[in-house]
Amino acid sequence: MTQNLLVVNGPNLNLLGKREPAIYGSQTLNDINRDLATVASQLGVRCEFYQSNHEGDLVDRIQQAMDSTDFIIINAGAYTHTSVAIRDALAGVNIPFIEVHISNVHQREAFRHHSYLSDKAVAVICGMGAFGYTAAMHYAVKHYLK
Amino acid sequence: MTQNLLVVNGPNLNLLGKREPAIYGSQTLNDINRDLATVASQLGVRCEFYQSNHEGDLVDRIQQAMDSTDFIIINAGAYTHTSVAIRDALAGVNIPFIEVHISNVHQREAFRHHSYLSDKAVAVICGMGAFGYTAAMHYAVKHYLK
Amino acid sequence: MTQNLLVVNGPNLNLLGKREPAIYGSQTLNDINRDLATVASQLGVRCEFYQSNHEGDLVDRIQQAMDSTDFIIINAGAYTHTSVAIRDALAGVNIPFIEVHISNVHQREAFRHHSYLSDKAVAVICGMGAFGYTAAMHYAVKHYLK
Amino acid sequence: MTQNLLVVNGPNLNLLGKREPAIYGSQTLNDINRDLATVASQLGVRCEFYQSNHEGDLVDRIQQAMDSTDFIIINAGAYTHTSVAIRDALAGVNIPFIEVHISNVHQREAFRHHSYLSDKAVAVICGMGAFGYTAAMHYAVKHYLK
Amino acid sequence: MTQNLLVVNGPNLNLLGKREPAIYGSQTLNDINRDLATVASQLGVRCEFYQSNHEGDLVDRIQQAMDSTDFIIINAGAYTHTSVAIRDALAGVNIPFIEVHISNVHQREAFRHHSYLSDKAVAVICGMGAFGYTAAMHYAVKHYLK
Amino acid sequence: MTQNLLVVNGPNLNLLGKREPAIYGSQTLNDINRDLATVASQLGVRCEFYQSNHEGDLVDRIQQAMDSTDFIIINAGAYTHTSVAIRDALAGVNIPFIEVHISNVHQREAFRHHSYLSDKAVAVICGMGAFGYTAAMHYAVKHYLK
Amino acid sequence: MTQNLLVVNGPNLNLLGKREPAIYGSQTLNDINRDLATVASQLGVRCEFYQSNHEGDLVDRIQQAMDSTDFIIINAGAYTHTSVAIRDALAGVNIPFIEVHISNVHQREAFRHHSYLSDKAVAVICGMGAFGYTAAMHYAVKHYLK
Amino acid sequence: MTQNLLVVNGPNLNLLGKREPAIYGSQTLNDINRDLATVASQLGVRCEFYQSNHEGDLVDRIQQAMDSTDFIIINAGAYTHTSVAIRDALAGVNIPFIEVHISNVHQREAFRHHSYLSDKAVAVICGMGAFGYTAAMHYAVKHYLK
Amino acid sequence: MTQNLLVVNGPNLNLLGKREPAIYGSQTLNDINRDLATVASQLGVRCEFYQSNHEGDLVDRIQQAMDSTDFIIINAGAYTHTSVAIRDALAGVNIPFIEVHISNVHQREAFRHHSYLSDKAVAVICGMGAFGYTAAMHYAVKHYLK
Amino acid sequence: MTQNLLVVNGPNLNLLGKREPAIYGSQTLNDINRDLATVASQLGVRCEFYQSNHEGDLVDRIQQAMDSTDFIIINAGAYTHTSVAIRDALAGVNIPFIEVHISNVHQREAFRHHSYLSDKAVAVICGMGAFGYTAAMHYAVKHYLK
Amino acid sequence: MTQNLLVVNGPNLNLLGKREPAIYGSQTLNDINRDLATVASQLGVRCEFYQSNHEGDLVDRIQQAMDSTDFIIINAGAYTHTSVAIRDALAGVNIPFIEVHISNVHQREAFRHHSYLSDKAVAVICGMGAFGYTAAMHYAVKHYLK
Amino acid sequence: MTQNLLVVNGPNLNLLGKREPAIYGSQTLNDINRDLATVASQLGVRCEFYQSNHEGDLVDRIQQAMDSTDFIIINAGAYTHTSVAIRDALAGVNIPFIEVHISNVHQREAFRHHSYLSDKAVAVICGMGAFGYTAAMHYAVKHYLK
Repeated sequence: MTQNLLVVNGPNLNLLGKREPAIYGSQTLNDINRDLATVASQLGVRCEFYQSNHEGDLVDRIQQAMDSTDFIIINAGAYTHTSVAIRDALAGVNIPFIEVHISNVHQREAFRHHSYLSDKAVAVICGMGAFGYTAAMHYAVKHYLK
Repeated sequence: MTQNLLVVNGPNLNLLGKREPAIYGSQTLNDINRDLATVASQLGVRCEFYQSNHEGDLVDRIQQAMDSTDFIIINAGAYTHTSVAIRDALAGVNIPFIEVHISNVHQREAFRHHSYLSDKAVAVICGMGAFGYTAAMHYAVKHYLK
Repeated sequence: MTQNLLVVNGPNLNLLGKREPAIYGSQTLNDINRDLATVASQLGVRCEFYQSNHEGDLVDRIQQAMDSTDFIIINAGAYTHTSVAIRDALAGVNIPFIEVHISNVHQREAFRHHSYLSDKAVAVICGMGAFGYTAAMHYAVKHYLK
Repeated sequence: MTQNLLVVNGPNLNLLGKREPAIYGSQTLNDINRDLATVASQLGVRCEFYQSNHEGDLVDRIQQAMDSTDFIIINAGAYTHTSVAIRDALAGVNIPFIEVHISNVHQREAFRHHSYLSDKAVAVICGMGAFGYTAAMHYAVKHYLK
Repeated sequence: MTQNLLVVNGPNLNLLGKREPAIYGSQTLNDINRDLATVASQLGVRCEFYQSNHEGDLVDRIQQAMDSTDFIIINAGAYTHTSVAIRDALAGVNIPFIEVHISNVHQREAFRHHSYLSDKAVAVICGMGAFGYTAAMHYAVKHYLK
Repeated sequence: MTQNLLVVNGPNLNLLGKREPAIYGSQTLNDINRDLATVASQLGVRCEFYQSNHEGDLVDRIQQAMDSTDFIIINAGAYTHTSVAIRDALAGVNIPFIEVHISNVHQREAFRHHSYLSDKAVAVICGMGAFGYTAAMHYAVKHYLK
Repeated sequence: MTQNLLVVNGPNLNLLGKREPAIYGSQTLNDINRDLATVASQLGVRCEFYQSNHEGDLVDRIQQAMDSTDFIIINAGAYTHTSVAIRDALAGVNIPFIEVHISNVHQREAFRHHSYLSDKAVAVICGMGAFGYTAAMHYAVKHYLK
Repeated sequence: MTQNLLVVNGPNLNLLGKREPAIYGSQTLNDINRDLATVASQLGVRCEFYQSNHEGDLVDRIQQAMDSTDFIIINAGAYTHTSVAIRDALAGVNIPFIEVHISNVHQREAFRHHSYLSDKAVAVICGMGAFGYTAAMHYAVKHYLK
Repeated sequence: MTQNLLVVNGPNLNLLGKREPAIYGSQTLNDINRDLATVASQLGVRCEFYQSNHEGDLVDRIQQAMDSTDFIIINAGAYTHTSVAIRDALAGVNIPFIEVHISNVHQREAFRHHSYLSDKAVAVICGMGAFGYTAAMHYAVKHYLK
Repeated sequence: MTQNLLVVNGPNLNLLGKREPAIYGSQTLNDINRDLATVASQLGVRCEFYQSNHEGDLVDRIQQAMDSTDFIIINAGAYTHTSVAIRDALAGVNIPFIEVHISNVHQREAFRHHSYLSDKAVAVICGMGAFGYTAAMHYAVKHYLK
Repeated sequence: MTQNLLVVNGPNLNLLGKREPAIYGSQTLNDINRDLATVASQLGVRCEFYQSNHEGDLVDRIQQAMDSTDFIIINAGAYTHTSVAIRDALAGVNIPFIEVHISNVHQREAFRHHSYLSDKAVAVICGMGAFGYTAAMHYAVKHYLK
Repeated sequence: MTQNLLVVNGPNLNLLGKREPAIYGSQTLNDINRDLATVASQLGVRCEFYQSNHEGDLVDRIQQAMDSTDFIIINAGAYTHTSVAIRDALAGVNIPFIEVHISNVHQREAFRHHSYLSDKAVAVICGMGAFGYTAAMHYAVKHYLK
């Protein structure tokens, strides 16, 4: 049976490619998602995409994934560092997930060095730009969606 | 005159009874609220119920209570530990409230040991499951809604 | 078989009703215990009461409960914040217990925000005055002494 | 060409004039905005106003300002102390802004002494009530909107 | 009766306009004071100016203001972060004051993020250059010197 | 009417004069108390003395003072640094007290620099040996027992 | 002349062999003491034993040892982490002592990683069960009681 | 030979009796010094008095005492908490001194709980008003100036 | 011209596949390196492998890479958390590198949450087992070794 | 079958008996090891000895013990406080071990109060000089090598 | 053109040679300055000397150096650890400087381990006595005053 | 008799002159050592040089110096901040030493502000480049090798 993957992006990631390309690269989020859809298709998994600037929306969306999704790739953006609610949603639905960051958070402000998600995640990738999502997808397919 | 009580539940409490029953019990939030409605009715107070995964919605709902509600019972879930906005809403409307947690937060992660609400609350109850809401309601009726 | 409940109060709780009624209410500890005895009797459980200002006495009394007591309700007063010995006694006898505080400790000095008992307790109640003991007794009977 | 200014208010600022006038003054947010509109008009700048209790809405609104707004005056209320998402939105749109607080946050709880916005702001004003917005507007016009 | 305002500047503010104009602007302290004197005159208040690099001199000057001054605008410079003596002098003479900083201290070293004066001040302004003093003067006249 | 003073000494102060005279002087506690009794008699106040190594005994004794004692001079020894129970007893009986230490605690281990009693005390004296009790008695008589 | 050794055990060590054998072994304290008495006798030293759950009793007992005891082996249990009074008693009587813990405290809660006794002790042993007392006794006899 | 005593007062103590009598009492510093001069004369010691708001002046004055002064009583006011220079001056001249505070610093802001002088002092007295200087003088005469 | 890649593994990674497969997987380091060699060959880059338990050897090897290596993939194992020397070696040779961890370090002891390498790295990957090295190699080839 | 014991000593322990005998005793490491070999022989176990100043060598040696050693006694010296690699090696080979220190580390610098090994050890002994190794060997033989 | 060097000494350095020679050596400051003048003369630079116990005087003197001095050697004594004002003065005049301490501050109280000057200095020397100034002068002449 | 001096350099200092000349200057370590050998020869002392990237090697080398070396000049590089073993070696051989850093460590990462060597050193020099070694040598010869 075909497996389902959900790619979730948090606040301000809709600005990708529009601002600060030195940090985040020049691709828009749509560009990234289009490429990821292609990879997913090649790997034989279904993939949905979601972005919101609203913590509550992200919690809602993760909850909706409970019965239909097999793996989540999430870049929670700023909420990585402040949201216990998203942590609890991910733990509550009990779906394995990988945490991705486009930039290397360890080179930025000290408050970005702590994540409320990492110890619940399968894996964490940062600093690889859009490639981080692709690597996460390959890993998920190889180890979780076979 | 009949008094009004508001029961507010925060993020992921709509998952109650669906996930992690070992921690949160097997009742759904609807089950709990139905039981609370019965208790309220027996005690002769009107009771409304609200749940949201959105911090802003919770702030909105608390503000709307300003002129019509005499007591709030709140389980702010994850926002307990991260939301100054809900603290400010509760202080802003100046309605007495009790803070309830279903699990014993002191047995969980260190970041759950701090609450932005507790020092503004009348009382705090944790670890009693759904019974915590009932106890809070009895206390509210006895001491605030007579 | 009738079940046994023990209500333990720590240092200075014998001053209840004599000093600082604004914080602790006007009932004496005897008043509270008399009311609790009535509730226990109605609920069909035996209930014993103990108070001491001595940490060692409280440890001794908890140890004596080992073979005869099914549940403990404890307000360890000041020792809540300083006594590892009482924590160890409660863990040593392995009797489930609820931690009660008459005042809302979160509104008081910072050193009262930490308890050596909470993570070993079934539940924690603070700020409800004497009602906290009653609620704890109802919960104990309902979930542990059936 | 006429320049555009955006005045953003965060959670619970819609309660202004309704509660706690001792801290926040007796003017409503509408009163304040009306006065600011007059000042803006005298200074020859266009001015828009936005208030929300929702962190995500505030992020959305700041993003929308990207191509049409020359300066932002923001009182993020409680989110000042908890929102990395608003910080990132302001940095992402790269519009200069002044941070305003109606009360003197340094006289309040310790967690209000830290702001996620201040080091990205042009300037910070607190404790001047509604006058703080006016002063910020004058400064913006003089130094940024000429 | 005409009211008296005192503008106090602390250590190294006499270097204004001579060094590091990128941070502090190109006006000298004399330029700023001359402009402020004009504003004061327009607003109908008397205004005196004082600058010293000596903590003790600043304490002495604030004490001398006790019977003759109605409001103080103070930029204590480096002493903002290290002087309890100036804090005590301001509290001792019991004259309302506004704390001003020319640069945005939140963008500078961590030790500049704490002020011994802020919680005793009516208001705090930073990052507005010389305009900060003017705004403080307008606020003082409007709310304290009427 | 003659006023009553209570002098309380905590753990290990009964060793005075027997061990470590370099730190605590060569007088025994009995010597000190005999001298204090003489001073009290000269000053026209009644004075009782109590020493115990038991925290609970000290709490009991302070509670017994509630209706008969006008002032307490207390050297709680080691319990100064660890006993919330003694703090609560002193606050509970609401009798003014002075905290005395024979040695200068600031020259000793870091944990002796914090006292659970000092912010509830009228005054604190340390480093003056037995003279500290005498000074406290003179002060008490002059300001509280007239 | 025969030398005297004192073995002191603190709170809850009287529960040994009755509860939590996985942590503390299945021997009772009496079993341990009987074995130690045999060892002492073989080594030609006199040995006394004392256990109490009361901090004050432990202080009293240590003080009584002052003139008659040459070495102390102490397992202060929970008071290890909270009692400055016992530290002071041991320092006050100036008898060399070894600190023993039955379990490896470093594998337990963080607050058990600090001891008020260790820096005053000759040596510290933890995690060896009852063997720890025996090892301490051999060491004492070899190096202090010859 | 007559001995010499120096009484040093730091910043803002010249305001004594003029402001905040609730905290500092209604005597002026001159009143206090006049009374102390009388006591000194009765005790047969010479006594000089010095007050300054300048840290450097206090250092200079302490240095000048090096060859002519036998004991110093110092209330360094705000510099107590911030001045390593005064600490070094006192240590440099090697004259024994007592630290006095008129108010009980432990009831005030947290930064007043640390003193740069206490561990170098013979003794510390706080909370006794002007009586603290007198007690210090008696102690100095009794133990150091015989 | 063919580019050179160096894969460095630190202490105890030679135990891979021999111990704790639940955490580290069942592949040996040789297995992993053989697979990586295949990938490198497919991608057209030369790849060398190095492992040592010695901090100094790792520093030496990184230094030797200075003139011949274009990218480093490093799993410094325990030295990640303790070695400034390896950090300095990587910065000194100025070769871009990716930090890889086989397990998710965020689920382990707190001291593993800090890395001396991360802020100097291009990217960080953890929790993906041997796949982490492969992903790093793909990224390196795509972005650095073209 | 004869069991094998390994005694490992870390950096600078080869200086034993050559320097600072007041802290470490006058025996050389060879003396200690010779005595231990005698004890091992009496107890019927084989015993090997290893000392190195190199963290990597210690890791290598511990790894080599994996298949041939039943128990390790380790005094890691300075690496106790800084080496995660040795911790990982000990955990990786999964051989039970006792941590020994010749001096009482609790009487020395604060950084010596933390050990990276203790929570993985069976037991910890410090302050008993060479006797600590002997006690550890007896314990190992009695409880692990029977 | 001849270059100008300024040697600044802070509080209590005028006591050099008069007190605590064990820490600071037996030379007076005049001796040191005379020797430095000789060295300066040999090196062909002009050298001025300044000492004050007043923070404000030191700030004034550094400011006066702005147009005439090419290098500063400063031992700010106690102000090293407390003065942001001197830091700002040195940064304000933008003259390169070396920080010198006569004693090794790392062997003294913890508060002496932090300097407000070091990160603005060219170099820092401590523990070399008067030789530190000489070394600083040679370095300044060699690298800055050529 | 001719005295012996040892100059020890730690990890990555063999890269001097090859990388990052902006921080460390353009001289190689060989250049520096050659110059130092010349100076030593002029001063009439024998001088040996040692560099290693291995902590254990540095410990070994320091130990070997025990009987033949009169003074050590050490730049432990990264091990300055992480090596207790080198600290213990230096203390163990009891040879006076000066700590040198080429760059001003106070301008670099926070973890470089702490040294495990400084409080055991005679003196500390940083920020003077190769000149730091020379100054250390002159000082050693003048004060220790006469």
